[in-house]
Amino acid sequence: MRSIAWLAGVTGSLLGSAALAGALSPEDLETAARLRDQALAGSGAYEIVASLTTEVGPRPAGSAGDRAAVDWAQRKLAGLGLSNVRLQPVVVPHWERGTIEARTTAPFPQQLVATALGGSIGTPEQGIEAEIVRYEKLDDLRNASRADVEGRIVFLSQRTRASTRPDGYAATVYNRVAGPSVAGGLGAAALVIRSVGTTSDRVPHTGALSYTVNAPKIPAAALSNPDADLLERMLDGGQPVKLHLKMTSRDLPYAASANVIAEVPGSDLADEIVLLGAHLDSWDLGTGAIDDGAGVAIVTAAASMIARSGIKPRRTVRVVLYASEEYMLAGASAYARQPPDEIARHVLALEADSGGDRALALDALVQEDKRPLVDEIAAVLEPLGIEPGEATTRGGADIFPLMAQGVPAMQVRQDWTRYLDAHHSPNDNLDKIDREQIDQVTAAYVATAFLAAQAEGGFGRIEPPKRTFAPTSGSGTAPGSGSAARD
Amino acid sequence: MRSIAWLAGVTGSLLGSAALAGALSPEDLETAARLRDQALAGSGAYEIVASLTTEVGPRPAGSAGDRAAVDWAQRKLAGLGLSNVRLQPVVVPHWERGTIEARTTAPFPQQLVATALGGSIGTPEQGIEAEIVRYEKLDDLRNASRADVEGRIVFLSQRTRASTRPDGYAATVYNRVAGPSVAGGLGAAALVIRSVGTTSDRVPHTGALSYTVNAPKIPAAALSNPDADLLERMLDGGQPVKLHLKMTSRDLPYAASANVIAEVPGSDLADEIVLLGAHLDSWDLGTGAIDDGAGVAIVTAAASMIARSGIKPRRTVRVVLYASEEYMLAGASAYARQPPDEIARHVLALEADSGGDRALALDALVQEDKRPLVDEIAAVLEPLGIEPGEATTRGGADIFPLMAQGVPAMQVRQDWTRYLDAHHSPNDNLDKIDREQIDQVTAAYVATAFLAAQAEGGFGRIEPPKRTFAPTSGSGTAPGSGSAARD
Repeated sequence: MRSIAWLAGVTGSLLGSAALAGALSPEDLETAARLRDQALAGSGAYEIVASLTTEVGPRPAGSAGDRAAVDWAQRKLAGLGLSNVRLQPVVVPHWERGTIEARTTAPFPQQLVATALGGSIGTPEQGIEAEIVRYEKLDDLRNASRADVEGRIVFLSQRTRASTRPDGYAATVYNRVAGPSVAGGLGAAALVIRSVGTTSDRVPHTGALSYTVNAPKIPAAALSNPDADLLERMLDGGQPVKLHLKMTSRDLPYAASANVIAEVPGSDLADEIVLLGAHLDSWDLGTGAIDDGAGVAIVTAAASMIARSGIKPRRTVRVVLYASEEYMLAGASAYARQPPDEIARHVLALEADSGGDRALALDALVQEDKRPLVDEIAAVLEPLGIEPGEATTRGGADIFPLMAQGVPAMQVRQDWTRYLDAHHSPNDNLDKIDREQIDQVTAAYVATAFLAAQAEGGFGRIEPPKRTFAPTSGSGTAPGSGSAARD
Repeated sequence: MRSIAWLAGVTGSLLGSAALAGALSPEDLETAARLRDQALAGSGAYEIVASLTTEVGPRPAGSAGDRAAVDWAQRKLAGLGLSNVRLQPVVVPHWERGTIEARTTAPFPQQLVATALGGSIGTPEQGIEAEIVRYEKLDDLRNASRADVEGRIVFLSQRTRASTRPDGYAATVYNRVAGPSVAGGLGAAALVIRSVGTTSDRVPHTGALSYTVNAPKIPAAALSNPDADLLERMLDGGQPVKLHLKMTSRDLPYAASANVIAEVPGSDLADEIVLLGAHLDSWDLGTGAIDDGAGVAIVTAAASMIARSGIKPRRTVRVVLYASEEYMLAGASAYARQPPDEIARHVLALEADSGGDRALALDALVQEDKRPLVDEIAAVLEPLGIEPGEATTRGGADIFPLMAQGVPAMQVRQDWTRYLDAHHSPNDNLDKIDREQIDQVTAAYVATAFLAAQAEGGFGRIEPPKRTFAPTSGSGTAPGSGSAARD
């Protein structure tokens, strides 16, 4: 749906097209269309995500898989024809999931399928046993009285709805991110949430929590949807429901990891950078195919196609495979901590972190007078079934810290309909990647990246978008975690 | 599709209808139609399976859940108006799943999601590490040379296909049932199979194996479909693939359980029995909603509707909720071990053990001259969208030992399309039960059971159908396990 903001962009386009005439040459547009069609016919992205999930698999920050992924990425990027392959060392948090035991002890004893939220502390060794108090939404919990919550295990039962957009995720993700400290602040013994996930598979969906400094840390876990249903049925029976929860999750010492960087070197504007980002780390439950093997594959395949096309782009196209996106955004912070003149070299940033399903629209946040250039690029994507998008985007969790410093961003907006089925769960595996769809997304990336590298005058600078925070998650929230609703 | 056998039945019907005229009175047909429509409007079956999965959950033979299920069933059957609620004590095997650790150690280390096959022995305490040798089908393994298999871990990679019929299951279930002893006979160190299940969820599907006395017992496990895919991709790479497998599965001492029996007492033919069977036990991974909470609910709701209708049937309608169907069929064997004159009182047996999805056809194996009576009953089911079925059936694993002694059987044949998605897996939960479909199935059962209780002259005796065995599973196969392809 075309928003009012986008209509404003159209007006800008009509006014501005004269000024930007010639920003993209007919030859550039033709080359972009050729790269697009070539990607659509077989981009190689599927093979990249197959390789990563087969040869590395799970790669949470600080783990052996993380190190294996960094090695894999160096080999893969070089092998696919990219230049200047190098590592930016990043110190990453190293959280260990450990084991979990969750079972009802009253009124009916049953084992539940659950998993720790990323970053959760463990329980005491003997576990916690307490009565459950249920709230649907985080706001209901915020309005609860300490007397109702204290000493109990809070259960947030809100269900996540599937949609082409991340709306469903935005509506429930703060149960996970902020819930633990809201519950902890009211004296809860622990928190369990209904997984932020959209299938009835008996698999739990993990994801990072964010403890505030203002509340006691309590253990927090996600129940699979059928287990949340079961708990609701027990609670509906009217008898007190007791839960026993035992978790051995813990933080280990920080570990060494790296952002993996590679380039298609530019020519006359080689100092200027078009950044293609994705994150190399994944959660540990699945093999990180949709989150974010797909993104790694899309940006790697797109850059590789340009590198191997024989055409030297004007600007440098830089691939950054970020470390530790899922927990603490350590790689994104490290990359964004560059001197202002280095940041200023970034003409545009794009991040692929929405799985491998079909691209629907091209959203962009660029300097207002550069909107016509976005429209020109969008027109090249039209044969892919991609619509002109909104005149704004939050980009992605890893490039948000660049946007906060004025770097323009685009987002190839993908279909989220089935993204949350497998997201952060054991079901995040290669079978969820559809070859035809990931080729279409890669086609959008390669055309967009190439045109961004060629466009005379670039995209200007942007007003940093506002950070969003969970309404009361407070000062303990990690920098950049405002983009958690998209991670 | 109407088979030739069924067409033969039609011929029989035309010839025989005169002889059977009046076997069912217009009043009986009218009552059956009323019960059918009442069930369709709300049979109570959904509430029964909700109660069982919520209040008991998993109930493998010999476990605490098994005992809780027996208690639940006694209360539920009495509470729903059935009479003569009683237990037939059954000594059941008590196998414990224990823990499993499965991971590739070469060429790429990855954890795999797997589960022990029911009845498997464990590994030595330090686990087993060996190279994988892959065969697609059991027959390929049978044809393998000892030199290729000895000391290795065999991987049977065959995929199970979904269908309205159990064909897919029939094609692959012997990988699970007979595979362990075929591999063991060739000197394999262990067996892993691709789960006999039809989704790409990362959940493994368990189910009983059957060791023969002629081969060494080896540990055996099922991999989830995505893990089997992963193993195949590693094997396709051409490098040797090594697996580390550690399992603590074991048999515990036999335990006390029971078949739970209840009745709608008959009137003038009270000594004759129409048996409605289902099994009360389940595997431990899910909560046994489709296997076989649905069956328990269907037969219990059907009998309860007759009991509460105020109409006294001619014959006794007996509900038998069998113990230990999943492993060793101990309840079925105990029930069938009755003196011939007791067996002879069984006029007809029906078993519900195919989940809760829509009924498609009524199959029946009755004395040839009684086929017209089946057609009369089938006609009452027609408004439910149920077709006349085949003139044969294997009934079900629990009633097969009765059929082997000449008891006629019918089968309300249900849609298996999604049955194997969740079957024997952690995904077997209440969300897989569709209220409208289970009411339709229950409508078929209540009408069929009532008419069978009324029909003048009954269904005669049958020639015992042949047992089927896994081609070379040999003499160690438990009696009755020939029906494993339907359990």
